[in-house]
Amino acid sequence: MAYRTGVVGASGYTGAELLRLLAGHPEVDVVHVTADANAGREVGELYPSLASAYGSLRYAALDPADLAGLDVAFVALPHGESQRVVPALAGAVAHVVDLGADFRLPAGVYERWYGTPHDAPGLLDRFSFGLPELFRAEMAERPHVAAPGCYPTAASLALAPAIARGLVEPAGIVVNACSGVSGRGRGLSAPSLFSEANESVSAYGLLTHRHTAEIELALGRLAAEDVQVLFTPHLVPMTRGILATCTARPATDGLSTAKLLDEYRDFYDGEPFVRVLDEPPATKATWSSNAVHVTVRFDERTGTVLALAAEDNLVKGASGQAIQGANLLLGLPEVLGLPAVGVAP
Amino acid sequence: MAYRTGVVGASGYTGAELLRLLAGHPEVDVVHVTADANAGREVGELYPSLASAYGSLRYAALDPADLAGLDVAFVALPHGESQRVVPALAGAVAHVVDLGADFRLPAGVYERWYGTPHDAPGLLDRFSFGLPELFRAEMAERPHVAAPGCYPTAASLALAPAIARGLVEPAGIVVNACSGVSGRGRGLSAPSLFSEANESVSAYGLLTHRHTAEIELALGRLAAEDVQVLFTPHLVPMTRGILATCTARPATDGLSTAKLLDEYRDFYDGEPFVRVLDEPPATKATWSSNAVHVTVRFDERTGTVLALAAEDNLVKGASGQAIQGANLLLGLPEVLGLPAVGVAP
Amino acid sequence: MAYRTGVVGASGYTGAELLRLLAGHPEVDVVHVTADANAGREVGELYPSLASAYGSLRYAALDPADLAGLDVAFVALPHGESQRVVPALAGAVAHVVDLGADFRLPAGVYERWYGTPHDAPGLLDRFSFGLPELFRAEMAERPHVAAPGCYPTAASLALAPAIARGLVEPAGIVVNACSGVSGRGRGLSAPSLFSEANESVSAYGLLTHRHTAEIELALGRLAAEDVQVLFTPHLVPMTRGILATCTARPATDGLSTAKLLDEYRDFYDGEPFVRVLDEPPATKATWSSNAVHVTVRFDERTGTVLALAAEDNLVKGASGQAIQGANLLLGLPEVLGLPAVGVAP
Amino acid sequence: MAYRTGVVGASGYTGAELLRLLAGHPEVDVVHVTADANAGREVGELYPSLASAYGSLRYAALDPADLAGLDVAFVALPHGESQRVVPALAGAVAHVVDLGADFRLPAGVYERWYGTPHDAPGLLDRFSFGLPELFRAEMAERPHVAAPGCYPTAASLALAPAIARGLVEPAGIVVNACSGVSGRGRGLSAPSLFSEANESVSAYGLLTHRHTAEIELALGRLAAEDVQVLFTPHLVPMTRGILATCTARPATDGLSTAKLLDEYRDFYDGEPFVRVLDEPPATKATWSSNAVHVTVRFDERTGTVLALAAEDNLVKGASGQAIQGANLLLGLPEVLGLPAVGVAP
Repeated sequence: MAYRTGVVGASGYTGAELLRLLAGHPEVDVVHVTADANAGREVGELYPSLASAYGSLRYAALDPADLAGLDVAFVALPHGESQRVVPALAGAVAHVVDLGADFRLPAGVYERWYGTPHDAPGLLDRFSFGLPELFRAEMAERPHVAAPGCYPTAASLALAPAIARGLVEPAGIVVNACSGVSGRGRGLSAPSLFSEANESVSAYGLLTHRHTAEIELALGRLAAEDVQVLFTPHLVPMTRGILATCTARPATDGLSTAKLLDEYRDFYDGEPFVRVLDEPPATKATWSSNAVHVTVRFDERTGTVLALAAEDNLVKGASGQAIQGANLLLGLPEVLGLPAVGVAP
Repeated sequence: MAYRTGVVGASGYTGAELLRLLAGHPEVDVVHVTADANAGREVGELYPSLASAYGSLRYAALDPADLAGLDVAFVALPHGESQRVVPALAGAVAHVVDLGADFRLPAGVYERWYGTPHDAPGLLDRFSFGLPELFRAEMAERPHVAAPGCYPTAASLALAPAIARGLVEPAGIVVNACSGVSGRGRGLSAPSLFSEANESVSAYGLLTHRHTAEIELALGRLAAEDVQVLFTPHLVPMTRGILATCTARPATDGLSTAKLLDEYRDFYDGEPFVRVLDEPPATKATWSSNAVHVTVRFDERTGTVLALAAEDNLVKGASGQAIQGANLLLGLPEVLGLPAVGVAP
Repeated sequence: MAYRTGVVGASGYTGAELLRLLAGHPEVDVVHVTADANAGREVGELYPSLASAYGSLRYAALDPADLAGLDVAFVALPHGESQRVVPALAGAVAHVVDLGADFRLPAGVYERWYGTPHDAPGLLDRFSFGLPELFRAEMAERPHVAAPGCYPTAASLALAPAIARGLVEPAGIVVNACSGVSGRGRGLSAPSLFSEANESVSAYGLLTHRHTAEIELALGRLAAEDVQVLFTPHLVPMTRGILATCTARPATDGLSTAKLLDEYRDFYDGEPFVRVLDEPPATKATWSSNAVHVTVRFDERTGTVLALAAEDNLVKGASGQAIQGANLLLGLPEVLGLPAVGVAP
Repeated sequence: MAYRTGVVGASGYTGAELLRLLAGHPEVDVVHVTADANAGREVGELYPSLASAYGSLRYAALDPADLAGLDVAFVALPHGESQRVVPALAGAVAHVVDLGADFRLPAGVYERWYGTPHDAPGLLDRFSFGLPELFRAEMAERPHVAAPGCYPTAASLALAPAIARGLVEPAGIVVNACSGVSGRGRGLSAPSLFSEANESVSAYGLLTHRHTAEIELALGRLAAEDVQVLFTPHLVPMTRGILATCTARPATDGLSTAKLLDEYRDFYDGEPFVRVLDEPPATKATWSSNAVHVTVRFDERTGTVLALAAEDNLVKGASGQAIQGANLLLGLPEVLGLPAVGVAP
């Protein structure tokens, strides 16, 4: 018998992507979807791509009581709204999987990067940082999951083996990442317009992008010491995909590209979604899948470790990873409903 | 126990798309793949997107003996090559599903449009024109399938209800279609370059595109008389997708948009992959799925029927339709392994 | 001494394109720009591409008194707003060049297609329909210009020689056109989002697009009888460019592609911006220029004339044509400040 | 009286871009164009965008004698071919402006990065490294110009003020850059295909891209000591544009973003093509122009200088810069024929 789930905030891109993936999930039924601004409309009206799977389902305005008793509630609300909704939800459903930023960081770090105190600090301990490849054990011990951001997923998986095994210094790390425009969501804003984004690359959020805190948090746990990252995100003219290009200074002698590739392959051995490639990864190969493709180099000339990771920002960077977390909470195989094969070309 | 299949010409885009879709097919195993120019290379080397599903599989040079005894051989070769290969294959495997143009047309029509006599005219009768929504009965009676071209699939499904029910005249039909660049395949040519195709729309093959013959053939069978079409294909800057925009003159009085939509919904009732929409279809909603989205209008002002259909050219326009045909030949549910949900955005 | 001009509504895409082109115009100075929503901001802040040419210029809220005495006022306001502004402007400046739809159609036709009576019908006679290649004589006799829409420019120039010379029937014309997303302007709307428009083609405004009226008007004048067009616009994933693909039924015997190309070359002989090509035109070749590339075919098989035209929708389809009209009104060479060379790739 | 020039290798993208820009140059006439593979064809046949300017001009096979007596020969050949051609050309024309890599580096550095000895080392001293903003004085003293590569132009201009004024350390510099696909030229190769490049970002040339040598050379001259750079180029799905994102460690105390912006503005004061912006630059704003947009930040948290530069790779990164160099050699105003205004959107 399938698990019963609901999606809160199901009209945005990560909500729609949850619905797309869950339509193919053999053990999960979507029984309720909310979208305040689109309440009353059919899912297939907003997303004709989903019409064949959710023909008669209509968005409801959010009322936590409507979700009472569900096995899992996925929350795909804009940052800041989850902490208002989750207190009611957490008591009503078995598991909450939040795709927003609200339950990823400790209260103090949250306040420092978001400039406002957390509304529900008492609930933070009930959420794990939902990156299974790095924190699977912790995830199994807590009832709820805060799925990490799109950039932190790519950057953390690119650097994790090097950090966890003490191969690079925890300071002086530089992460440059390129993201497709869907990372900005479905909201209307000038930089999201086709005519503005097309044929253009630009960086944004210089020095201050909030995902920095998540990258430092994830890597800091692996390093068991403070990690410092300068993170610069870029917007590139594509719909989906993130490529993180990371540099770090070596912490040991004797590094080489071959040794690093070996360490990475050993670290990710058995992971169904992470592949360590000899060649530079392309986001296209991960398109619409939950895969992450990684490679690593040691530059002897400048004494620098270079690590790259590619993913689909809406899948492994958001909705796929949320489902991976839900599978884990429900005791299902982690890969259920999640393609590792990308759509290319 | 799964059926055993091979893919001949598996390094091109339609071949790779067959592999992508078959990786998720519960009743089919891919046991052999050929690609003469890439013989010896791993599938995952050419297509990192497929590495997790076909890690150790290598392309072989084509030798029909290698496919002997298989349940199905998919043939995804450039036009003209199938007719050289199929004679040997057809005796060695239970079913051939050809994605090329070689077995779609009667010998005389083939020679008229391709300018050269057919090499294997004796086999033409063993192939059905593999558009299940229109010719399902015939497909069940022949051992092999010639999957129709990408444009003919969209155009025929856009016009089929109107033609089959005698609502429009068989002459004076105009089909304009826009295709993504993947329709040109993976071969190297200047018009396929990003810098040439991006930020450009152009028509090509004016008056002479060979898919005209398939559209006229498919619609002619429905009309039970000759149908004449002026078909103009366009290249647009996207990877996948075809939109066919068709006009025809009414053959009866009393047409209206409402009546046409009713006729179309009735005609396609029960079809798992065809949806008749009230709104104009967008190719994006069918992206990577086997879906076809159709709408129709009657313009009282000019007395014209306007019909549109959107599809993914590599799926319903090629590899998905080929698998749909194979399912039918094998007695499996037609929808097996074929998503009706598109990836959007 | 340069002519002094102002641009009303200079923060939208056609306004910015006017500024870009006028920055290179040797006989025109831009001395005033208005943009109500961006009043007080610098041009270069909104458009860094223009900063080097208009560094210190700031947008003002519109006050017709600010433009008093100018030689030309370009009006690039959303449809419907020009007719409220032009009555005051027309008395204050020597020439008005309106890029909107308000002064292109006779009052009755306007009301039929726009569903509301015209606000300033008394001024309509003072505006010419500003397509110089077709209506140069009329333009020279009226003080103001209504520059035609982007689609009507392409469609009219594609069909004009055939219509004007009686080679095709005035009824049964079908125009399909593909437009880049900049045609939707800089306003925020879901279909203009990158993630919605990218990798998608769709038709819109089925049967009812208002540019139909302009196409019928322009061609009707050439035919000296009513012309009827079914016009279907499409949105394609590129920023700029329109390709119009038009079919019409022959009105005379003896047509051939060679004869049609001769007639077209003769008709456009001496036109600096129109080129009749043997090959199908691509929008890319006209990118950022005022050029229109045209070709034509006669399909003997179906008895149909096929005509195509490519242009940059923001230049020949809007701002470039407006400047061409202004040059004509001011007695300057029509080509001044207007590139015929496109940026490609 | 105009200067007479020829373009060697005029059928590639940088050659075509030279023709486009020179069509608008008031003091230069193009009298000869070569393209071995396209000899005999008209320029306008290959590039319909250029037809109105070069209607009757045909490509010739290269014979240096055909260029004898010209004022300038632009050489836009693939890397490695210039050194075979220039020895004959340099004696026949007054000035050579080479757009390839052959004359940019000292012989020893060339051999180290290109793996083969230089064919014409005796001519290297007659070429200057043609980045006028940094090496204008040297350029005026030598007869020929080697226009720098597209990436080195962006990276060097992003970092030049910080390096030249001793604000950052010469080691530990990291340059990540994103380039449009036109940077790969017009040659046929799989990664240049639309269907491969679209919807994908990937890095390439990891650790070994040859432009590293040019960046180190240019910055090393400014620093008057060795500079070491880890350079990672990325391919992004657009036709034109390069964004360089650079990090460096501070060499002095008391840095701040405000101070850095002041230093940058002072350094580039009076430069017609370089603008120092407060906001992050977007490549789109420089599209088709010779402009470079730069910004800089100091991250107090990690103690890092972050500098960014955007340009059009085919203009300031190639053909525009070559013309700027030619203007300088000919004693013309550097800006002649070179737009500083970009085409946006």
